[in-house]
Amino acid sequence: MKFVTFSMTDGAHLGLVDADHQVIDLTAAWPAVSAASAPRDVADLAVLGTEGLAITAEIAKVANARRLDLASLTLLAPVPRPARNVFCVGRNYKDHIDEGLRAQGLAPKPLPEAPEFFTKSPAAVVAHGDTVPVHAKATKRLDYEVELAVIIGRRGIDIPRAEAMDHVFGYTIANDVTGRDLQRRHGQWFKGKSLDRSCPLGPVVVHRSVIGDTPDLAIRMRINGELRQDSRTSRMIFDIPAIIEQLSLGMALEPGDIIATGTPSGVGYAMEPPRALGVGDRMEAEIEGIGTLANVIAAD
Amino acid sequence: MKFVTFSMTDGAHLGLVDADHQVIDLTAAWPAVSAASAPRDVADLAVLGTEGLAITAEIAKVANARRLDLASLTLLAPVPRPARNVFCVGRNYKDHIDEGLRAQGLAPKPLPEAPEFFTKSPAAVVAHGDTVPVHAKATKRLDYEVELAVIIGRRGIDIPRAEAMDHVFGYTIANDVTGRDLQRRHGQWFKGKSLDRSCPLGPVVVHRSVIGDTPDLAIRMRINGELRQDSRTSRMIFDIPAIIEQLSLGMALEPGDIIATGTPSGVGYAMEPPRALGVGDRMEAEIEGIGTLANVIAAD
Repeated sequence: MKFVTFSMTDGAHLGLVDADHQVIDLTAAWPAVSAASAPRDVADLAVLGTEGLAITAEIAKVANARRLDLASLTLLAPVPRPARNVFCVGRNYKDHIDEGLRAQGLAPKPLPEAPEFFTKSPAAVVAHGDTVPVHAKATKRLDYEVELAVIIGRRGIDIPRAEAMDHVFGYTIANDVTGRDLQRRHGQWFKGKSLDRSCPLGPVVVHRSVIGDTPDLAIRMRINGELRQDSRTSRMIFDIPAIIEQLSLGMALEPGDIIATGTPSGVGYAMEPPRALGVGDRMEAEIEGIGTLANVIAAD
Repeated sequence: MKFVTFSMTDGAHLGLVDADHQVIDLTAAWPAVSAASAPRDVADLAVLGTEGLAITAEIAKVANARRLDLASLTLLAPVPRPARNVFCVGRNYKDHIDEGLRAQGLAPKPLPEAPEFFTKSPAAVVAHGDTVPVHAKATKRLDYEVELAVIIGRRGIDIPRAEAMDHVFGYTIANDVTGRDLQRRHGQWFKGKSLDRSCPLGPVVVHRSVIGDTPDLAIRMRINGELRQDSRTSRMIFDIPAIIEQLSLGMALEPGDIIATGTPSGVGYAMEPPRALGVGDRMEAEIEGIGTLANVIAAD
């Protein structure tokens, strides 16, 4: 199953996308007899757990359910306003670590022994097709990072590796837009990672049952059509079960939580010479089996 | 004006505390004619801006407004569930930086040239009197940090230093409980800073008009009665206007946002020998003019 969140006159609606790019409006079709109110985004559906998926399957079976053309919809981020910051993993692909050290003129170092977690503000989240501000006052070195993002589907704390995938609802694409100069200047990465509208997310969430538990997916970023990042999600240093196990230690994960799992090599600041994003640049983040998340840099 | 958030059978209520420790239930007394619904916590009141303060003043004038005894109330954190992670400033007192370097056997370094921002999850926030779990599975080095916390009262982005204090609603106390081993192991500090229930906050929010714009307040932490931290908030490296100016660059601050402004020296991990918090330890974080935030470490 694939899901989108889209905008209607009465707010966000949750949609189920079929193979023909037709969308069933789950929010409109949700049975009034259900104890839970109709989900309006992917986080709401994740909260409903297996009951929500069962109702979704029932709705999808009805032959005459009204369908909308995906291309005609105004998409929102799958979770337009997360209930807390987006969790992110830094330096999770070896080639990206190497290029970062090279760009800073540093010698190779041992790989991180544990995932480096930081966060992006909920106000950073924007949809496929939304603009990302160039933030000229704040940064001269705006950069892109394509990442596989995980949506949590079941609450859990101290989740053992073997059970981690039971807590995943599905997968989407994140673009961890970063002010490199801010990231460096402030020591901790949060400031360079949480500029407003700097976290494009979506467009589609693919349920875990479609992609499976050990995703080995092509992951790419194109800037104005030029291929910049090109790797596979199987090259993560810490895989998704390891990330969930370590992140959930002493901290419960909740349905609707979002985890961006790190970016491969090919970011702009590690190019020779370094490249920064500017107004009009088109970013296309693509992950095999999920889709393409496209956003353009706009003037402030 | 001093505010608390407390628990009633129908949920959180906002209270105004008078000099005799009597509390007016603002949520119950809020006029139905007001366009805005009654505020239920300090963040709701901050969102209402000057209108909210004017209504509060009107309610306080009514001689027969029902008053509750502060000591009889079940306090909640002033903002029980922040809409996004709590913003925190690392290494913002010189003596704390020095003790940290000493504890790690490192030579003195230049002071940070910019504030080091990180976050704590909303699920970390607990009230005065709540227990903090020892998190034995996650950390062997649980530690305390008393901090002056600022509650934002007015939206703003790219806020210049000279206008920064106009965006402050008031002040409270935070205890930035930290798993030192996690903080170290994961490189970025988020993981060690966001254990569930590791951010006691409160008990009282003192409006900015009471404390003023350049607070020079005694700030102390006692563990089981023993004075461990003892400094003044005027010793911050980056003062509140500098923190707001830099944090708001490219990222709008919103009413109800919380910023913990860093801790002075005297934390457990820098003691000789280092000390960690254990079950039964009582933490009393005290800031002059605000009050005392007390929490006990409990078994998991």
